[in-house]
Amino acid sequence: MLSLIYLIAITAEAMTGALAAGRRRMDIFGVAVIAFLTALGGGTVRDIVLGRYPIGWTQHPEYVLLVVAGGLAAVLISRYMRHLNRLFLLLDALGLVAFTVIGCDVALGMGYHPVIVAMAGMITGIAGGILRDVLCNRVPVVFRRELYASVSLLVAMLYLGLEALHAPHDWNIAASFAFGLALRMAALWRKWRLPVFAYIHDHH
Amino acid sequence: MLSLIYLIAITAEAMTGALAAGRRRMDIFGVAVIAFLTALGGGTVRDIVLGRYPIGWTQHPEYVLLVVAGGLAAVLISRYMRHLNRLFLLLDALGLVAFTVIGCDVALGMGYHPVIVAMAGMITGIAGGILRDVLCNRVPVVFRRELYASVSLLVAMLYLGLEALHAPHDWNIAASFAFGLALRMAALWRKWRLPVFAYIHDHH
Amino acid sequence: MLSLIYLIAITAEAMTGALAAGRRRMDIFGVAVIAFLTALGGGTVRDIVLGRYPIGWTQHPEYVLLVVAGGLAAVLISRYMRHLNRLFLLLDALGLVAFTVIGCDVALGMGYHPVIVAMAGMITGIAGGILRDVLCNRVPVVFRRELYASVSLLVAMLYLGLEALHAPHDWNIAASFAFGLALRMAALWRKWRLPVFAYIHDHH
Repeated sequence: MLSLIYLIAITAEAMTGALAAGRRRMDIFGVAVIAFLTALGGGTVRDIVLGRYPIGWTQHPEYVLLVVAGGLAAVLISRYMRHLNRLFLLLDALGLVAFTVIGCDVALGMGYHPVIVAMAGMITGIAGGILRDVLCNRVPVVFRRELYASVSLLVAMLYLGLEALHAPHDWNIAASFAFGLALRMAALWRKWRLPVFAYIHDHH
Repeated sequence: MLSLIYLIAITAEAMTGALAAGRRRMDIFGVAVIAFLTALGGGTVRDIVLGRYPIGWTQHPEYVLLVVAGGLAAVLISRYMRHLNRLFLLLDALGLVAFTVIGCDVALGMGYHPVIVAMAGMITGIAGGILRDVLCNRVPVVFRRELYASVSLLVAMLYLGLEALHAPHDWNIAASFAFGLALRMAALWRKWRLPVFAYIHDHH
Repeated sequence: MLSLIYLIAITAEAMTGALAAGRRRMDIFGVAVIAFLTALGGGTVRDIVLGRYPIGWTQHPEYVLLVVAGGLAAVLISRYMRHLNRLFLLLDALGLVAFTVIGCDVALGMGYHPVIVAMAGMITGIAGGILRDVLCNRVPVVFRRELYASVSLLVAMLYLGLEALHAPHDWNIAASFAFGLALRMAALWRKWRLPVFAYIHDHH
């Protein structure tokens, strides 16, 4: 089940990455690279930081082909994608929770401290979007929009808390998705944002 | 022979990296860092992604000194470099093919799947230029100009195909250079580009 | 003693990172991420490049909490921080020397060549600031301002030179701090800069 959600999520992330590349008028090769990094970049950064080799997608070339195909498909259907905006926000939220839970599981299995496990979950959830934005030459949106990275952190904390209480794994996964999706959707609907720090005393 | 081409290529890449730094009015230390990353960054990213330690240049400090010297030399002769533009485009194309072939060889030797081997070749070929552009705060040109990253992909596919057919290694290398150089030069001369994806329905 | 300076330095770096995030109007989550990367990103890049696993902060979750707390504290006292500008320039200089010396020690202990050891010192000293600037979408200041990266290089060379002469370790550390702090402070006071390479013959 989590595997299926993962495949749907990386495809959806690849498609939104492709649109970001299109806003920068990249060629279709650039679209494919940005789609790949948006979808699989978070897991790549997590594996490098945790020292987990071989890196996930290097053992699953079918994931690479899937996300590249997803990115190129987004080019073909781009004129319809704005009508699918809500669907993609939902799939993106699914992906955020799935990536976070998977990232926590990987770090738990390697015996890292709970603080590091939560960070591994967040890195998996948000680093792909950060790489996408850096390569598209803009300040990462995950640091400025409706609750996003913080949803990942709270999901990680809930997941680790329930694990510590020895909750059944399936229930824990279900609770994480229910909580994470509800929080992210509510944040989008009510435009919840974290406080912004605007520092203007700049003497540099 | 491939070693000699490699040394020429990293020096040429370092020199073009230095010019990019000069367009951002960096100091000579910044020039040296950008020269280093442009020349050796692709191999570094490849080694990190494949988990190949120790990373290449850490065992060859003479490469580091060579590319830094190349970058600083470019500063000294910068006023003449625009007259050498065609020479540097040729050296850059040589480097693209050499990096791609070397990257494929590294991943082949580690037993990765052919899809990952081709990606290792491309990463080696293009990641240095991407790092250069990110640090110079611009959208990577490899995603927007005349065929470049796609030349790397096609060279990797040709190289892997000939390897699979058990072609003699020297012939395979020669064919890769002949094909890659011809394609890149033709793309520059005829201004061949991949289709661009311009996405303007942006409601963010 | 070096450990204490290290803790002070990562906290100070986190606080200056937070101000950079505030200039981009990030939310407090973005502030925490930039604070973390500014303070601990240099050591992370060094460990990844040298292949030193597990990465330092993954074994010290208290460092992660310290730098995040430092970043958030900077938000609270940001209106006073410009009055503390000189203090933070001093703490930043302390951190630059401490990071450089620690980075050299790590690479020395792994048996790398002196050129690579000096690079490990510099990477530890400057990569955090580079990551901060890339995520804040600007050209890294370490390549353009008063002597900074070059102070790190000279400190690394002095430190390695005294090590090679079998100077007592404490004396070596003391000499590195005295030299590095004096050079950085003099550079700030006298506005010493490296020559800038401004390349304007841009035909791209």
